[in-house]
Amino acid sequence: MEIKKVKRSEDYSAWYNNLVKQADLAEHSAVKGCMVIKPYGYAIWEKMQAELDKRFKETGHQNAYFPLFIPKSFFSKEASHVDGFAKECAVVTHYRLKNGENGEIIVDDEAKLEEELIVRPTSETIIWNTYRDWITSHRDLPILVNQWANVVRWEMRTRLFLRTTEFLWQEGHTAHATSEEAIAETKQMLDVYADFAENILAVPVMRGVKTANERFAGALETYCIEGLMQDGKALQMGTSHFLGQNFAKAFDVKYTTKENKQEYVWATSWGVSTRLMGALIMSHSDDEGLVLPPNLAPVQVVIVPITGKKAEEKELVLTKAKEIQTALRKKGISVKLDDRDNMTPGFKFAEYELKGVPVRIAIGPRDVQNESVEVARRDTKEKQVMSSIDLEHKIEHLLTQIQQNIYQKALDYRDAHIHNVNTWDEFIDALENKTGFVNAHWDGTTETEVKIKELTKATIRCIPLNNPQEQGACVLTGQPSSQRVLFAKAY
Amino acid sequence: MEIKKVKRSEDYSAWYNNLVKQADLAEHSAVKGCMVIKPYGYAIWEKMQAELDKRFKETGHQNAYFPLFIPKSFFSKEASHVDGFAKECAVVTHYRLKNGENGEIIVDDEAKLEEELIVRPTSETIIWNTYRDWITSHRDLPILVNQWANVVRWEMRTRLFLRTTEFLWQEGHTAHATSEEAIAETKQMLDVYADFAENILAVPVMRGVKTANERFAGALETYCIEGLMQDGKALQMGTSHFLGQNFAKAFDVKYTTKENKQEYVWATSWGVSTRLMGALIMSHSDDEGLVLPPNLAPVQVVIVPITGKKAEEKELVLTKAKEIQTALRKKGISVKLDDRDNMTPGFKFAEYELKGVPVRIAIGPRDVQNESVEVARRDTKEKQVMSSIDLEHKIEHLLTQIQQNIYQKALDYRDAHIHNVNTWDEFIDALENKTGFVNAHWDGTTETEVKIKELTKATIRCIPLNNPQEQGACVLTGQPSSQRVLFAKAY
Repeated sequence: MEIKKVKRSEDYSAWYNNLVKQADLAEHSAVKGCMVIKPYGYAIWEKMQAELDKRFKETGHQNAYFPLFIPKSFFSKEASHVDGFAKECAVVTHYRLKNGENGEIIVDDEAKLEEELIVRPTSETIIWNTYRDWITSHRDLPILVNQWANVVRWEMRTRLFLRTTEFLWQEGHTAHATSEEAIAETKQMLDVYADFAENILAVPVMRGVKTANERFAGALETYCIEGLMQDGKALQMGTSHFLGQNFAKAFDVKYTTKENKQEYVWATSWGVSTRLMGALIMSHSDDEGLVLPPNLAPVQVVIVPITGKKAEEKELVLTKAKEIQTALRKKGISVKLDDRDNMTPGFKFAEYELKGVPVRIAIGPRDVQNESVEVARRDTKEKQVMSSIDLEHKIEHLLTQIQQNIYQKALDYRDAHIHNVNTWDEFIDALENKTGFVNAHWDGTTETEVKIKELTKATIRCIPLNNPQEQGACVLTGQPSSQRVLFAKAY
Repeated sequence: MEIKKVKRSEDYSAWYNNLVKQADLAEHSAVKGCMVIKPYGYAIWEKMQAELDKRFKETGHQNAYFPLFIPKSFFSKEASHVDGFAKECAVVTHYRLKNGENGEIIVDDEAKLEEELIVRPTSETIIWNTYRDWITSHRDLPILVNQWANVVRWEMRTRLFLRTTEFLWQEGHTAHATSEEAIAETKQMLDVYADFAENILAVPVMRGVKTANERFAGALETYCIEGLMQDGKALQMGTSHFLGQNFAKAFDVKYTTKENKQEYVWATSWGVSTRLMGALIMSHSDDEGLVLPPNLAPVQVVIVPITGKKAEEKELVLTKAKEIQTALRKKGISVKLDDRDNMTPGFKFAEYELKGVPVRIAIGPRDVQNESVEVARRDTKEKQVMSSIDLEHKIEHLLTQIQQNIYQKALDYRDAHIHNVNTWDEFIDALENKTGFVNAHWDGTTETEVKIKELTKATIRCIPLNNPQEQGACVLTGQPSSQRVLFAKAY
C-alpha cells in the first residue's frame, strides 16, 4: 500500500478526499454521485448506528420500514414539500427491460408505469399516508417510529459522505395529540443528537433553530446542530423538525380526542446521515491520517510485535502480546494483534496512524524482559514506556482520556472561532481571515439573509437556543435587531 | 382492537394474510407490491439481523455498502444474469420533476438520463465492477464482504414477506483465489444459514443443491435450504451460490498469483431476506396467532397483574410484579409488565397470544400471599402454578424448553411429510393428499423437470447434500436414475 499524503494546510479539500480514499473509508462508484462505503468506513458507521439506535430506543422509539418508492402524486399534497424536493428526484418510469433488435438491453416501452414512482428523498409523505390508517383515537398516540434507510437526492456536485446522490440515514417520524408534545419531542431529539455528537463523535455542536429561509420543506420550525470543521467551515450535522399539522392536513390524518372531537395530528421528523462520517473525519484528523475517538474506533488498540529473526525471541514476544490482547479484550476493548511478518513495524505504524487507531502498543524482546511496553497515542502522538503490569486498566483509562482530549481540542478550536462583530467590515474580515462562526446582528428578513449569502457565501447556520437578547443593528442594513445569529460558510 | 380470526384448516392463505396484519407485523403500502414493515414485525427482523450478522462476523466477513442503482449496461455483461433479472426491474429514466402548466407535478423531460439506471435486484454486477479496482494480487484475496440492503424485483402477484416488489435482505459477495476456496465458502455459508434456521428460527431445513433449471442466474451451482410450512408447501429460505469465474470474466477481475501469473478470481454470493419472516410465521403459528421461538421474540415474557378494585391489593400485586420483572431482566430476559388498567386480563391474554409472546405470567393478590404465580406457555398453551421463589431460573429454563419444543414439533411435522414414492400414481397421491416433500427418482433432464411442473405445479426443491445413491426409474419417464430428489409444491 502506497500512502500518498496531502497536507491540510496546503489543500484542505484535496486532503479530505485523499484521506477518505487512503484510509479505506469510501470511494466513488460507477454510478454518478453514488458512493461505495468500504468495510472500514462501514464499521465506523455501524458503531454510529448502534449508539444512535440505543438512544432512540431509550427514548421510547421503535424501528419500522416504509417503501423505497413514493407515488408522484403524494408529493403534490404538501405544497412547500414538493418545492423543496421535486428538483432532485430519481424517477422510476418503467418496470421491465427487454432484448433489443441487436441483442442489446433496452427499456421495454410496454412496461410503462401509469403513475411514476419517486425514489424517496425523505419519507414524510409515504409515512403520513400510512399513519392515516394507524391513527383513529387519542389512544393510538403518540406514534414514535424511526427508520434506517437509504435515500436519494439527485446532486450535481457530490463529495464523499458530505453530499452524495444516495446516502444512508435514519429518519424519525412521530405523531402526537398536541402541539406541545410534538415540540417537546422535536427538542428531545435535538438533545439526543447533540449528546451523541459531543460524547461519541467528540464534536462540539451549536444547538439552534434555522431561519425561515433555511427551514425543511414542510416544517414550521427546524432545529439543528452545527459543527465547525478544521478549515473554519460549518457543517449541519443533524436536524429535528416540528412539522405542525402540515402533513396531517395534507394526508387527512385526524384523531378523536378524549372529548370526542376530531383533531388533526401533530408531527415531527428528525434525521442524521452518513454525512456524520464527514463531520468525524474533518473535525479531528491530521496530516498523518484519521484520528478516531475511541468510542467509534472499530479497532481501539493495535499491538505490534517487534521481533528479530530468532524464533525463540519471536515466540516470547508473541506469547506476551497475546496475553495482553486477552487481558484487554476482557475489558471490552477492541484489540488487533498485527503479527504479519512480511512488513516492517514502521510500515505498520504508518498504516494504523492513517486508519486512526487510538492506541498503539509496541512490544519487543527487551520489553518482555523488563515487563514493559511502548504505548503511543494517536491523538497527541505521545509515546511512553509503561509497565505491562495491570496494563488493561491503564489502557482503559487512556482511552477515556483520549476521547476527552479529542473533544476538548475540537471545543477549544470551535470556541476560538466564534467572532462577535458589529460592522460589515468586521463581518467580512472575520469570514475571510479568521474563519469560523461569525456572531452578528441581522435584521430578521429573508431578503437580507439572501443578500448576505450572495455577497459572502455565508449563511445563517442557526439562531442558538437560549440566545441572549440584545439590541443592535444589522451588519448589512443597519436595521434594528434584537439578537445576534451565527453566520458561517458551510458545507 | 378487534381480533378477527381465520382458521388454518379453513383457509391457510387467508389465515396467513390475516395473521400478518392482526399481529401488527406488516401491511400493504400505497405502492403496489411494496410492504410497510410495522414496528413489531421489524423488531423480529432486527433480532434475525443481529443473529445473522454475528455469525457472518464470526466467519470473518465485514459489512460494506454499494449503490442502489446499477447502470443498465452492467446487466448485459453476464449473459444468463440479465435473462434472470431483466424482466422484473424498476428502471430510473429521469432525475427531476417540475410543475406542469396546470400546477400539477410532472416529469421533466429535459432531465432524462443518458443511460437508464436499474434499481438493484441483486448486486453482483455493481460489486464485481468495484472489485476490479480492489483486487490486484493474491494478497488482496479473499474479500469477504456482506451488505444489508433493500432490493427491488418487480412482482405481479405479491404476498406480505413471501414475495414483495421491494424486500430487505443481506447479500454476501466474496472473492477467492481458487475454486476450492470459493466452494468451501459457499458451503460454509449454507451451514451458517442452516444453523440459524434451526437454532434461532426453530425451522428444520433440508440442505441441498438446486437443479440447473432452478439455479441462480449466473451461478455454476446453487446451494439452498428448504423448509416445510404447515400447509405442506416448501419454502426456499436461503441460497448460497458458487459463481465460478463468471462475474470475474464479465467484469475483467484478475489477480496475480504467487507464481506471477494472471488468473480470474473465483466468486460466491449468498443471501437471505425478509422472506424468513414468512417462514417463521408459517412454520409455528396457530389459530390463536403467532407462536414465536424465544430466541426471536421481542418480548419473551409478559407479566399481567390481575387486580381487584382495592388500591392496597393493586399496590401489593404491582410491587410483586415489578420485583419479578427486575429479577427476569437481570437474567437477560426481555419482559413486559402490562399494567394498563383500561382493559381486562382476558383481553390482554388474547393480545399476547396473538403476538406470540412465549411465556405469560399472571399474578393476583392470592398469588402474592401464596408466593406463587400462574405461568402459561404460548406453544403448548399449558398453564401451571409455580412458586415465585427463584422464578427467574425456572423461566430461563422454560424458555429453552419452549425453543426446543417448537423446533421438535416442526421437525416431527417435516419428517412425517417426506414421502418416498416410486410410481407416477404414488407421486400424484403424495402431492395431492399427503402434501409435503415427495422423494422420487428423476431422469436428470430439465425437460422432465419442466414437464412435471406443468402437470403438478411441483418443482424439484433440491438434491439433498450427501444424498444416498440408488438405482431407480424416473417417476414420469421411467428412464434410469441414480438418486431420488425432493419435489414439492412451493411458495
